[in-house]
Amino acid sequence: MSVGFIGLGIMGSGMTANLVEKSHDVVVWNRTSSRMDPLVALGAEPASSPAELTARCDFVIICVSDTPDVEAVVEGPDGILSAVESGTLVIDHSTISPSATVRLAGRVAEAGGAWLDAPVSGGSEGAAAGTLSIMVGGDAADLERATPYLESYGTSITHVGPIGAGQQAKIVNQILVVGNQLAASEALLYAQGAGLDLHATLSAVEGGAAGSWMLSNRGPQMIERDWRPGFTIDLQQKDLRLALDGGAELGVPLPGTAFIFQLYRGLQAQGLGSEGNHALVKALEELSGIRLGG
Amino acid sequence: MSVGFIGLGIMGSGMTANLVEKSHDVVVWNRTSSRMDPLVALGAEPASSPAELTARCDFVIICVSDTPDVEAVVEGPDGILSAVESGTLVIDHSTISPSATVRLAGRVAEAGGAWLDAPVSGGSEGAAAGTLSIMVGGDAADLERATPYLESYGTSITHVGPIGAGQQAKIVNQILVVGNQLAASEALLYAQGAGLDLHATLSAVEGGAAGSWMLSNRGPQMIERDWRPGFTIDLQQKDLRLALDGGAELGVPLPGTAFIFQLYRGLQAQGLGSEGNHALVKALEELSGIRLGG
Repeated sequence: MSVGFIGLGIMGSGMTANLVEKSHDVVVWNRTSSRMDPLVALGAEPASSPAELTARCDFVIICVSDTPDVEAVVEGPDGILSAVESGTLVIDHSTISPSATVRLAGRVAEAGGAWLDAPVSGGSEGAAAGTLSIMVGGDAADLERATPYLESYGTSITHVGPIGAGQQAKIVNQILVVGNQLAASEALLYAQGAGLDLHATLSAVEGGAAGSWMLSNRGPQMIERDWRPGFTIDLQQKDLRLALDGGAELGVPLPGTAFIFQLYRGLQAQGLGSEGNHALVKALEELSGIRLGG
Repeated sequence: MSVGFIGLGIMGSGMTANLVEKSHDVVVWNRTSSRMDPLVALGAEPASSPAELTARCDFVIICVSDTPDVEAVVEGPDGILSAVESGTLVIDHSTISPSATVRLAGRVAEAGGAWLDAPVSGGSEGAAAGTLSIMVGGDAADLERATPYLESYGTSITHVGPIGAGQQAKIVNQILVVGNQLAASEALLYAQGAGLDLHATLSAVEGGAAGSWMLSNRGPQMIERDWRPGFTIDLQQKDLRLALDGGAELGVPLPGTAFIFQLYRGLQAQGLGSEGNHALVKALEELSGIRLGG
């Protein structure tokens, strides 16, 4: 039984390599076809379109960037939808709109197929190491069918609810990530302004009630002014747009998240969109003239 | 050699009990004298005033609430200052103003004594279990003298800089605590609005880049609407006032912290100051009509 993988970016390539390594028969497709070459070299087979890939596979995995990208590979010319059969299970690892997810899943269901929304966290390191966290929305029986594949690259697989719930849980994840990042930014800039030893301060506070993944993992990078991305500002901003759209639809106030969105917008306007999301602190540095490590 | 302990509130009582248990000779004083009784029953000796306690002890530990409370036990009638001798080391575990700390330490130094500012984190559980984190400002040699006592109730003791630096590091700690708390509040309220299973969502996100101590420890309490304090809003608000005062003095912008301060102010005005700091989410619930667990 073959599994198809559409979207061989930095995340998808790592996940696909893990699928191949776990001895699954993998068919791949990517818009920029040269990105298929390294996976074909590992043993994957190339497809000529999402439709052709879908015709050859019961399981069709998608990992692209944004809502329009998923819509294109599903509903576009030679898209997945044109080849869905009874038994086709589409698994979408992209982080996209929950309401678009429900709409796309409905169209796939009308054609006889099924859908799981399964956004991931853990970054490119997690994709390569096979240690992603996967938040899954959809039918429990479909998740059970998909689990052998998901276990190729995910160590934490949580069923959070019906179709769309996986995307909503990813939004929850991103609200936490940026909120913790703002806290780390204000805290380290305060430490800088107070003349503290930043590494000693970090080690004094990270083990207690102040601790967070962002502080322990991005704090040292911030202190060293190392802005290489674990996750870029541009992608973070896309996810915050989904969060704010979702908050507006659901009537949930997200004042902190909205504020952070505006700070990131300023950094994007300065051309810093490809830096890591921990460069948020630069927005506060500009307000004060105080610089970390400066 | 005796050690004196001034301030037998919920934190100080636990710390003093640990000192007595580790076989130190402990002298205690508390403004409300009945709070000395349980410690005297354990083997501590009561003093009649901070001055009398200081005359009997080379090490004088303070653990009270706010800047004026420390000023009163140091500079007030029958205060520590009137009995400081060469060799007296004052160790202040209270969370108070860094600039007041520098001023008080200067007065003690003029009288021949020394000062360590050593605010703690870890809450009443940490005080009782002897597992506090202690952030210390002052002279390294003084910290070395004090370490046998600090180790009675602290497992992480970090020297972060000169006098005042301990208080500044505690402010860093508190900026992180409330920022992570706002993120947890927005995230869980979003999850509630989206109809997600909150416990499943929490478990899907807490192990990754979204993780924080506040989310893992206060998130479950928030979901259950259990507002019992690990740390009260009133004390949290006092610490945020120190943070905002410090930010103003140092020229460090703290927009997130200032926003959270205002939200807590609203909750205090509603009479919720004795609830836990994780009741911050109630400020967002009121804006939306959506309630966690509702």
